[in-house]
Amino acid sequence: MTEPGTTGRRVLDLNADLAEGFGQWTLTDDDALLDVVTSANVACGFHAGDAPTMRRVCARAAERGVRIGAQVSYRDLAGFGRRFLDVDPETLSAEILYQIGALRAFAQAAGTEVAYVKPHGALYNTVVHHEAQAGAVVDAARAAGDLPVMGLPGGRLLALAADAGLVTIAEAFADRGYTPEGTLVPRSEPGALLPDTDAVVERAVRLARDGVVVAVDGTEVAVAADSLCLHGDTPEAVANARAVAAALTR
Amino acid sequence: MTEPGTTGRRVLDLNADLAEGFGQWTLTDDDALLDVVTSANVACGFHAGDAPTMRRVCARAAERGVRIGAQVSYRDLAGFGRRFLDVDPETLSAEILYQIGALRAFAQAAGTEVAYVKPHGALYNTVVHHEAQAGAVVDAARAAGDLPVMGLPGGRLLALAADAGLVTIAEAFADRGYTPEGTLVPRSEPGALLPDTDAVVERAVRLARDGVVVAVDGTEVAVAADSLCLHGDTPEAVANARAVAAALTR
Amino acid sequence: MTEPGTTGRRVLDLNADLAEGFGQWTLTDDDALLDVVTSANVACGFHAGDAPTMRRVCARAAERGVRIGAQVSYRDLAGFGRRFLDVDPETLSAEILYQIGALRAFAQAAGTEVAYVKPHGALYNTVVHHEAQAGAVVDAARAAGDLPVMGLPGGRLLALAADAGLVTIAEAFADRGYTPEGTLVPRSEPGALLPDTDAVVERAVRLARDGVVVAVDGTEVAVAADSLCLHGDTPEAVANARAVAAALTR
Amino acid sequence: MTEPGTTGRRVLDLNADLAEGFGQWTLTDDDALLDVVTSANVACGFHAGDAPTMRRVCARAAERGVRIGAQVSYRDLAGFGRRFLDVDPETLSAEILYQIGALRAFAQAAGTEVAYVKPHGALYNTVVHHEAQAGAVVDAARAAGDLPVMGLPGGRLLALAADAGLVTIAEAFADRGYTPEGTLVPRSEPGALLPDTDAVVERAVRLARDGVVVAVDGTEVAVAADSLCLHGDTPEAVANARAVAAALTR
Repeated sequence: MTEPGTTGRRVLDLNADLAEGFGQWTLTDDDALLDVVTSANVACGFHAGDAPTMRRVCARAAERGVRIGAQVSYRDLAGFGRRFLDVDPETLSAEILYQIGALRAFAQAAGTEVAYVKPHGALYNTVVHHEAQAGAVVDAARAAGDLPVMGLPGGRLLALAADAGLVTIAEAFADRGYTPEGTLVPRSEPGALLPDTDAVVERAVRLARDGVVVAVDGTEVAVAADSLCLHGDTPEAVANARAVAAALTR
Repeated sequence: MTEPGTTGRRVLDLNADLAEGFGQWTLTDDDALLDVVTSANVACGFHAGDAPTMRRVCARAAERGVRIGAQVSYRDLAGFGRRFLDVDPETLSAEILYQIGALRAFAQAAGTEVAYVKPHGALYNTVVHHEAQAGAVVDAARAAGDLPVMGLPGGRLLALAADAGLVTIAEAFADRGYTPEGTLVPRSEPGALLPDTDAVVERAVRLARDGVVVAVDGTEVAVAADSLCLHGDTPEAVANARAVAAALTR
Repeated sequence: MTEPGTTGRRVLDLNADLAEGFGQWTLTDDDALLDVVTSANVACGFHAGDAPTMRRVCARAAERGVRIGAQVSYRDLAGFGRRFLDVDPETLSAEILYQIGALRAFAQAAGTEVAYVKPHGALYNTVVHHEAQAGAVVDAARAAGDLPVMGLPGGRLLALAADAGLVTIAEAFADRGYTPEGTLVPRSEPGALLPDTDAVVERAVRLARDGVVVAVDGTEVAVAADSLCLHGDTPEAVANARAVAAALTR
Repeated sequence: MTEPGTTGRRVLDLNADLAEGFGQWTLTDDDALLDVVTSANVACGFHAGDAPTMRRVCARAAERGVRIGAQVSYRDLAGFGRRFLDVDPETLSAEILYQIGALRAFAQAAGTEVAYVKPHGALYNTVVHHEAQAGAVVDAARAAGDLPVMGLPGGRLLALAADAGLVTIAEAFADRGYTPEGTLVPRSEPGALLPDTDAVVERAVRLARDGVVVAVDGTEVAVAADSLCLHGDTPEAVANARAVAAALTR
């Protein structure tokens, strides 16, 4: 983060996406991840996240002292928020504020607060370069009482958020391959995902200790990350998360 | 209301349902009604109410000093919240809290607050007698920071709300026929709706001045109402509302 | 069924619910179940069932010669169709016809047809006794070209369907406990579910061979079933289904 | 159309969008438009169009001999299908086939058939140039039994449809301004909409009689249109439609 002293009890904040089921369907092992992460990106109902699940996850996060973030999305349950939607900024801003407010009700009922906003899926990728939609996210964060904004370092979202005086939280990815330029290897190319838990742990440790990432070609790249993203929807998610948390605590 | 001095600048609070469009569709003349009512029941997205409309209505209500209430509903856009849904209390309570929180984000962004909760449609009618669902509404109102609850006098909702220490707001209807027992004439029977604007105005004046309603058979019935509901989705809604507001101001 | 010769290659038709995911979420192991059942109740999008999944399941069912049924539901994705909804018969009938038509497009594109209609979840239970909603299902089945109707024997749905001249398909349950009166043991009581795969297989064999079910108290009850329902959304679903299919084939 | 003799009783087919309400909300005056048009583009539930309305409109269209077309859309009720959605072709094709099938059930129940497919809103504009999404529409039209496809002349959709051997229906717009190159004046520029009913009628007559459109600069442009689109969601829609129909009948 751009302000000192907020990342808390570990050398590097660990975040993961939670509450990503809907009604009868579940996707993420919320309880297991809540024992590991320091920040929970809670789905807010637009790509996933029914109200009872959001409430339960907020209550458990509060018990464990895990920070709650609003994982906001395009309105797209059928596509899990993974498709670009050309929504106008006024509507997008209002829909993000709606999602933040809904989650905040659960956070406050659990005696805590929503600590930041993080766009999900296609919105996450779009606001790296889409000025108007990035502006809509910032507008919502400001209207919600100047919430910190989490996103990809170097993109338009964090730039606009900083311009607006908001705290920014730059994140790196525990299990994704990096290019020598410090961007992510596209999922369609070899090296997009790290091969195993050992590699994921090494990534986390190098990032926390040295502020560097080892790229696909072996180059060391400086990456200034405030938080490390652990994916929660893969079979090995919980094992990876536990191994990373254990390594960082050492 | 059960506490003194909260009904404000008129002898009788006037409430109406607002923001009941969705996306391309509109239903209520929000701007015209905001010039007349003292309390706006704002739809929260589950039976109607898209995010940009909710935000706009909250901003205008704040400008005019109109109180904002959360008009909460079953999750039922296709049925406009007018069909009973046998949802379990845990889910219902979380869904109501979700709606309140979403609206509160818009109210707070406009510099004001959500002042009360009012169930909509089938939920409104159900919580008159359905103990578990009435309890779910009260649970949500408490979790939202002890919000006042608006509903039908004599029903389970207001009884449970009072038991829980919440402020209750009993409402009467400006345009509905009453039986000599003080209940509403069912919509399927003659006299369910008052015939014209004159009758609606007389109803409002008698209620505000004398605390009585003239029933379909001419009997005078004592009705202790804190707020008077003006329907917003009929062609004559705005004309009726203006006439009532003018009469009550005199 | 009420007409001879339609149950096909096994002594007892086996049906299961399929395609019950939605977008990112999955629930049923469609491929494994399609290797076992003779009739697939395909979710049609109202409680579950996205379009690509429906299309894929229809194509595979056609390849395997599995009959396709329209598993129709209340419009309730958030509740998985498991909550009673007090929808009027005109709307319900149109919504069921909509679902049948959508599925039929996939069945016909795969070179086959929708062979029957089966209500899902709360609608399944409701039409056992709710005359108006049962009538709406029958109305839709007739409007869809006199489709056969699958449901609980002895209920209003099959009675009204028979009155309307439709083929009826009475089903029994492979893994549910029965009372001595031939009704299902409620899920809240002991004995609601058979204890293991052996019990499920014995149930299927007794039903196919002798037309009887052994009730929770040991009584033998005559049950005239045209089809046996295998649940698809439990961990042991596929194992149970395979064991039953193997036993019936012997 | 590319085949002779199908446009029927008038010199030019007239089409309009119908059934574009949803539940409590209405948008189009379906009954009035059904008395005027020869082709009804019926909304299929993804951007608008609830099941009872679709059924009613199909029944009335069948009574009046009006052709029924499937007005298919992105899954986007909140945006009325007017925002580009980057959905993959496999999902889009299945969703379009789903919509066609649903509508066909109502058409067949009314004794008629779905006669063509017409994309709506943002999908309409996108398939003019987006190869993959245009291909998805064509794939669905073929899977639905080689349905004719209606769209903008000169775009990818009609080109791919023709390549696939489908009948194509090129449409012109009764109330939109044209450039000298034969494309539409963007809605953000002057001349995007014709000024009044007289201009709309003249447009229709010139198109039907001479196959030309008068562009914003006065140039006459040859436009080969099989059908003329009348917008149904403006206040003057019905008056314009009646005037055009009367003029074309003369």
